[in-house]
Amino acid sequence: MSRSEVAILGMGLIGGSIALGLRRADPSATIVGYDVDPGALEGARRRSAVTSTATSAAAAVAGADLVVLAMPVDRMFPVLAAIAAALRADSVVTDVGSSKAEIVACGQDLCGGRFIGGHPMAGSERRGIAAADAELFQGAQWLLTPTASTEERAYRTVAELAARLGAGSVALGPYEHDRLLAHVSHLPQLAASALVSRAAEAEEQAALLGLAAGGFRDTTRIAAGDPDMWIGVLRTNRLAIIEALEGLATSWGELSRWLQEERWDLLHGFFSRASEQRKNLFVKPTGEGTPVTLTLLIPDHPGVLAEVTTAAGRLGANIEDLQIFHSTEGGRGRLEVVIAGESPAAALSHELEELGYHVQRGLPT
Amino acid sequence: MSRSEVAILGMGLIGGSIALGLRRADPSATIVGYDVDPGALEGARRRSAVTSTATSAAAAVAGADLVVLAMPVDRMFPVLAAIAAALRADSVVTDVGSSKAEIVACGQDLCGGRFIGGHPMAGSERRGIAAADAELFQGAQWLLTPTASTEERAYRTVAELAARLGAGSVALGPYEHDRLLAHVSHLPQLAASALVSRAAEAEEQAALLGLAAGGFRDTTRIAAGDPDMWIGVLRTNRLAIIEALEGLATSWGELSRWLQEERWDLLHGFFSRASEQRKNLFVKPTGEGTPVTLTLLIPDHPGVLAEVTTAAGRLGANIEDLQIFHSTEGGRGRLEVVIAGESPAAALSHELEELGYHVQRGLPT
Repeated sequence: MSRSEVAILGMGLIGGSIALGLRRADPSATIVGYDVDPGALEGARRRSAVTSTATSAAAAVAGADLVVLAMPVDRMFPVLAAIAAALRADSVVTDVGSSKAEIVACGQDLCGGRFIGGHPMAGSERRGIAAADAELFQGAQWLLTPTASTEERAYRTVAELAARLGAGSVALGPYEHDRLLAHVSHLPQLAASALVSRAAEAEEQAALLGLAAGGFRDTTRIAAGDPDMWIGVLRTNRLAIIEALEGLATSWGELSRWLQEERWDLLHGFFSRASEQRKNLFVKPTGEGTPVTLTLLIPDHPGVLAEVTTAAGRLGANIEDLQIFHSTEGGRGRLEVVIAGESPAAALSHELEELGYHVQRGLPT
Repeated sequence: MSRSEVAILGMGLIGGSIALGLRRADPSATIVGYDVDPGALEGARRRSAVTSTATSAAAAVAGADLVVLAMPVDRMFPVLAAIAAALRADSVVTDVGSSKAEIVACGQDLCGGRFIGGHPMAGSERRGIAAADAELFQGAQWLLTPTASTEERAYRTVAELAARLGAGSVALGPYEHDRLLAHVSHLPQLAASALVSRAAEAEEQAALLGLAAGGFRDTTRIAAGDPDMWIGVLRTNRLAIIEALEGLATSWGELSRWLQEERWDLLHGFFSRASEQRKNLFVKPTGEGTPVTLTLLIPDHPGVLAEVTTAAGRLGANIEDLQIFHSTEGGRGRLEVVIAGESPAAALSHELEELGYHVQRGLPT
């Protein structure tokens, strides 16, 4: 991010943490903050998260190279409408919402290819600027959701923002993102809240609930999260969540039936598979290693960016750098991607050839 | 625990941790270990968790003052049958199973009032003697489930065992225990395993699942637990779990309907309540404080112990000490309970008077 002025709209846990992280990475960075809540803005000022504050979203973005939307995702739509006309011609716009398809469609509709959806996979059940933390994104993954019309500079700018905050970045499509998150985030949130409710309602002796050991504590930690944020997620990822919810209800019914019928063999198989799956989930992909450059001759249109980056995301291949060179003769260009590690680079290369690209290892000769 | 020889049957995570903790608290303690798996027993010997090993459960208990059953709960039944005849006349028997009603009924049937159910609320998703840890129970609660026929010395012995390992102890009835645990442990376990299964099945791109942030990691941590242990729990707490599961299925159906009908008001209420409930769950009861002695004149039969200790558990009143004095003239005796803190002592005193006891503050005059 060689860019110099960042506008952050929303001074809650995430917006505040981005501001603090950027300030720490570069104490001379210019950060303009805005929040509909004057208290949050005042908090950001007191914590020196921002270098200036604005009195409206449109005023905040007027001089910004990069604009970050950091309010509950369902509240981003009117904000996009309010800022679109005030943006600088060369600015990049991103957001940090936990659902992507709807906001990306709206963002690209109002701001064009300079809008790229983002989702830092980090958070806390705590809320607000008081809980903001410059370290929040260290070691996290920042999901980017480019589409066929996303501009390369938008991708690069937000990938650099993530890197500056200590996060890696991974690209996947907005719908792919929403289906994935329905399973790994939205459904667990609903489950945690439902488990807490059921326990609190079924158990009159509140003192006893406090005895619940680590398992319950962990499983339900996220139930303490911000209801406003979660309503935003539910509103904007409703169909994928309903589908995931119904899938879980089916598993639920099956477990209940197996218990009724004392099918211990099936239940044992279920626990064993889940235990293996859980252990495999968080095995780090062996993506680190020598950087390998792949060069692709590409038709000169922006859809390529999304195709290549999301293929890398699917394969767990870490993109360390990426650049598009437009041919001066028009019609064709060149994309260079730097991938960490021989084996992920080979897998990506193979995948891209399957997709019809001509891939060359190393820089063009 | 002035007792001198402890037999631990089952050298897994829990049995091994009890052994290591006791050895550390008193390096001269005699601990006899037994496990059906010679490898586990050999591991216990290598880690110096035991002072000797036995070749059968019956041989292990022959000289023991205290016998601890620490295998999956459904495997305890044949072990109780195998050891009952070999027990010393004055020994106490307890277990560490995660469900209590069935094993307590069987234990008291075979061993009488010297059997008291126990459940240390601590664990780990790791398994086996290799994962055993002398610190495992530090700061945890050890649930005790006395019944009308439990002897005082059994209660005291296991409460002292817990204290020696750094845990507090709380009494509640076996059925009350099982209903509570169905909600705070068994249902969350099923939920975590089902969430992992659904995510793994719905998401073909395994690399993407690894992106799942802290929320999913926490919510599903327990899914990596030991299938054998969980089958034991399901088998022995089947009805309470089915009931809890059906309650959760009802909440689930409601959430799905609210999403279908876009009832954001109801969903917001649901999240807000759950968030509050979650925060209140782990507020520590303000039970610490000056020790207060309550003295009760009691009809001289053992049911009193369960009634008084479980009332204390319900109220979150910490029992620091407890002793029954039998009247030499027969018919009546005296129970002295030491409670931590003025206000819990007053609450317990009130509760016991409601139950028909005459309660006197302090020692008898």
